[in-house]
Amino acid sequence: MTPQRVTLITLGVSDLLRSREFYKAMGWRESGQSQENVAFFQINGMALGLFGMESLAEDQGRKGKSLGTGAISLAQNFTSPRDVDEAFNRAVKCGATMLKKPQNVFWGGYSGYYADPDGHAWEVAYNPFWPLEEDGSLRLPN
Amino acid sequence: MTPQRVTLITLGVSDLLRSREFYKAMGWRESGQSQENVAFFQINGMALGLFGMESLAEDQGRKGKSLGTGAISLAQNFTSPRDVDEAFNRAVKCGATMLKKPQNVFWGGYSGYYADPDGHAWEVAYNPFWPLEEDGSLRLPN
Repeated sequence: MTPQRVTLITLGVSDLLRSREFYKAMGWRESGQSQENVAFFQINGMALGLFGMESLAEDQGRKGKSLGTGAISLAQNFTSPRDVDEAFNRAVKCGATMLKKPQNVFWGGYSGYYADPDGHAWEVAYNPFWPLEEDGSLRLPN
Repeated sequence: MTPQRVTLITLGVSDLLRSREFYKAMGWRESGQSQENVAFFQINGMALGLFGMESLAEDQGRKGKSLGTGAISLAQNFTSPRDVDEAFNRAVKCGATMLKKPQNVFWGGYSGYYADPDGHAWEVAYNPFWPLEEDGSLRLPN
């Protein structure tokens, strides 16, 4: 059995300096594991990395392929709509592109999307049916 | 400050049934939170979802946009090269596409990549400098 696990999310970025500045402006602190050509951040239970777009394609065995924005969202859940608004507004202030303003959505929550400098989609959401653990992790209800 | 947190990773898929079967064949168990048109899996500290490609684009505020494979990797770290090989071989047996056979890599570890049915890149890796926590989570060394 393959464990239900992710230990590292790596985002390909076209300008590492710009992306570092963006996530730093958002309040994120880089790990001591960062290097000149790769940035790492500790998140809940895993790490998130920023790595040059071409280097990532090559590392994946897709050398020369154009990767860009893909069919994936990374969501941050919050415990209230107000916190969602705050996170969304902060991101936009830091240079994120608005994709969808936070709004009440059909599944009973409150959600918005912004894109980071390379178009990677971040969702900010409040889901009343999915309470968060004390450390901000999500354990799905049974 | 925006918390350094991800609570849900959602992969856009072109055939939800096929993707459900793929991850199930890999040994993953769906959460009771799954619904007909969306599959959820509990992973370490967050959830991973599978959602129709067009629905995801629309949800992101990118209705009608073609998303496909993007510049992102999801990595599973293991505690030995042997476990990496096992995970890689299992994935291929379940229908994954080989991107890069597991091999010794320049940063001193052992890593390979495969793609899921929609081309989403999964890395399987052993990093001797990044030990895993007992529950399989990753806490970056200082």
